[in-house]
Amino acid sequence: MSDEPIAGGGLLHRRTFFKRSLALAGTAGLAGAAAAAGSPLPETRPSWMLGPGKLRSAYGQPSVFESDVGRSLTPARMPGAGSSGTPHQHLTGIVTPSGLHFERHHSGVPQIDPDQHRVIIHGLVRRPLVFTMEDLWRYPMRSRMYFLECSGNSWRNTFPDPMDEPVGVLHGLVSCSEWTGVSLAALLDEAGVLPDAGWIVAEGADSVGITRSVPLPKALDDVILALYQNGERIRPEQGYPVRLFVPGWEGNISIKWLHRIEVTRGPAHARDETSKYTDLLRDGRARQFSFPMGVKSVITHPSGGQGMAGAGYYEISGIAWSGHGAVERVEVSADGGRSWAEAVLDRQPEKLCLARFRIAWHWDGGKARLMSRAIDDAGNVQPSRDDALARFAARNIYHFNGIQTWAVNGDGRVKNVFV
Amino acid sequence: MSDEPIAGGGLLHRRTFFKRSLALAGTAGLAGAAAAAGSPLPETRPSWMLGPGKLRSAYGQPSVFESDVGRSLTPARMPGAGSSGTPHQHLTGIVTPSGLHFERHHSGVPQIDPDQHRVIIHGLVRRPLVFTMEDLWRYPMRSRMYFLECSGNSWRNTFPDPMDEPVGVLHGLVSCSEWTGVSLAALLDEAGVLPDAGWIVAEGADSVGITRSVPLPKALDDVILALYQNGERIRPEQGYPVRLFVPGWEGNISIKWLHRIEVTRGPAHARDETSKYTDLLRDGRARQFSFPMGVKSVITHPSGGQGMAGAGYYEISGIAWSGHGAVERVEVSADGGRSWAEAVLDRQPEKLCLARFRIAWHWDGGKARLMSRAIDDAGNVQPSRDDALARFAARNIYHFNGIQTWAVNGDGRVKNVFV
Repeated sequence: MSDEPIAGGGLLHRRTFFKRSLALAGTAGLAGAAAAAGSPLPETRPSWMLGPGKLRSAYGQPSVFESDVGRSLTPARMPGAGSSGTPHQHLTGIVTPSGLHFERHHSGVPQIDPDQHRVIIHGLVRRPLVFTMEDLWRYPMRSRMYFLECSGNSWRNTFPDPMDEPVGVLHGLVSCSEWTGVSLAALLDEAGVLPDAGWIVAEGADSVGITRSVPLPKALDDVILALYQNGERIRPEQGYPVRLFVPGWEGNISIKWLHRIEVTRGPAHARDETSKYTDLLRDGRARQFSFPMGVKSVITHPSGGQGMAGAGYYEISGIAWSGHGAVERVEVSADGGRSWAEAVLDRQPEKLCLARFRIAWHWDGGKARLMSRAIDDAGNVQPSRDDALARFAARNIYHFNGIQTWAVNGDGRVKNVFV
Repeated sequence: MSDEPIAGGGLLHRRTFFKRSLALAGTAGLAGAAAAAGSPLPETRPSWMLGPGKLRSAYGQPSVFESDVGRSLTPARMPGAGSSGTPHQHLTGIVTPSGLHFERHHSGVPQIDPDQHRVIIHGLVRRPLVFTMEDLWRYPMRSRMYFLECSGNSWRNTFPDPMDEPVGVLHGLVSCSEWTGVSLAALLDEAGVLPDAGWIVAEGADSVGITRSVPLPKALDDVILALYQNGERIRPEQGYPVRLFVPGWEGNISIKWLHRIEVTRGPAHARDETSKYTDLLRDGRARQFSFPMGVKSVITHPSGGQGMAGAGYYEISGIAWSGHGAVERVEVSADGGRSWAEAVLDRQPEKLCLARFRIAWHWDGGKARLMSRAIDDAGNVQPSRDDALARFAARNIYHFNGIQTWAVNGDGRVKNVFV
């Protein structure tokens, strides 16, 4: 095995590292060696081995010892509005458990009776259609793993000073699930789209009736009416019983609690695509309809608020994604961007899906600056924070995909910094 | 688009079907066409649009309207023993939500404090090791999607008469998650396996101390100490805080609540690999250590207990897997095995992972017999029920992977049958 650094600051080759021990890497491993003279077996059995445990159950929950693992809750000014962030500092892999998928509501979570719910397709169609949920459940479906990211994700890093928050607060408005649903193209085909149609306008059944416009080419491409999330029926916070799911595009366009699709000539210019979800540019104009989310990554381990347990070997791990395709590769720097090494991806990344990257690191106990940058298969490279900010006016908070830097201090505390 | 049958009994080509409507397929679609004279929009708003909904929350749960979706519960004779089955009739895709992953306990679910828990590696090693959970969480990890199947899955179909049960009762002891953990090979490397070692023996920290033996070549290949399931820490029912995960092999060998690994010359011949989890052969001998789960599939929609909503178009969908590699293809018959057509797989199947298959079907309203058979990339073909039974003595209930047949009766009721 190679213990050779592959970039500055202690980054190591991971492929050989994985199946070899930390001990052989030239230092003591993490495990305590059992006393040479005695048995490593404990003398007494722990209390949970002294009698039968709890019975099997209909629907399981996390361990009571994990009760502090929850979404971070951010309120907003309107009734029922607010958001919650996926606690990526506690997670790994690419699947986000549905109970920890980020939320962004403009008027809370409606409790919809699926038997009463209808989806209407009308407007520039030959034949307006009304679907019950029973109707939709009978259609052919398709399952894919997709990320979903709020266009406002990472907004705190657009502010002048770095906030000392965990990764789930700073970047928690991105999650990833297996989404299953009915092709919108098939339903539009059944309704018969008229020749002068150019867009669809989708409306949710929350009390603000959140409304967004989608150009017809995208609507006829990979958009689905999502009925299932991670195998089971979609969760209430994600749009139960049905959500428009628009892969790779900013999250709010994936209209939750979908109840109406109008086929139109042009976009609706609805409240949620004029008063917000537009990008304020440096020349004072606001850009509408910047749909795909940019190529992006963030290190989740180690990350803000975590503490290092002394000098030695660590795995640096994080998530990467792009609304333009699949993640091609992720590079990591441990010296604040002076040198970079390519991380290992757990699996061949799927299109418009999170990728998990990992790289071995020997922390010497001193100051370090950890960064990651993603490159997608369309050739897009995640920009520096400065370059990402330069595209927009100072107070724009949307579509920020600048590189995150974590400072590891001499005491092992990890903190958000700007470079 | 093609509406041509691709096999008997009404099986249709799905690739073209997916993006085209059911209406264009030569029959009325499923949606109600809105009254031609009026607007399809409802005159009144539903109650849930009249005010803000519930606030975002720390850890979400399924809709109250899905409260009947739970694992099927089967008791056993010993205290805390029993199993629960994944309700595949309610699910789609390949991810099993962790709360619905099947269970099989021999002495219930111990509630383990991770701060008190230790994993010991001892026996034929140069250096016995004791790991705290904090130690393990620092090691390099790997994430993969893997199925897990109890060797007793589908045992009801080895009985002489077909039981009229849902697919989740008949075949619910298979589930699929993203599993993340530390390579066992790396930990064994750190302990230093001695030359005369041939097996490892793993023991769980439930009160029966469930124990299984794994040959060293497998232990050094893809076995992990699983710490995370579907992104979050592994659930209590699945072995919190740490489970030995042995990809592709019968479920009980993936020792839950792992607390001890002994490196040994030979297998332990432990209670759970002698009194059970052996295969009774036709000549009266019992075979030990039949580890990999065979190639298998089952249609989940339509399936036992479900009812058809009249003649017309349906999607047939199900799951397939193999402990010998990746699913290569799945074939479906709608005429009891006289003709077969290849189903579409949602994604390129991963190794030792569930695959979801789908095929379009026009049900003429008469009697039909639905079957699926999986073929893996090692060339294994799922056997008929008779051929699967012929490998074992009459009362053997393990490793049954025979083809499932669902009869659709003239009244639309779907029922388990043997052919």
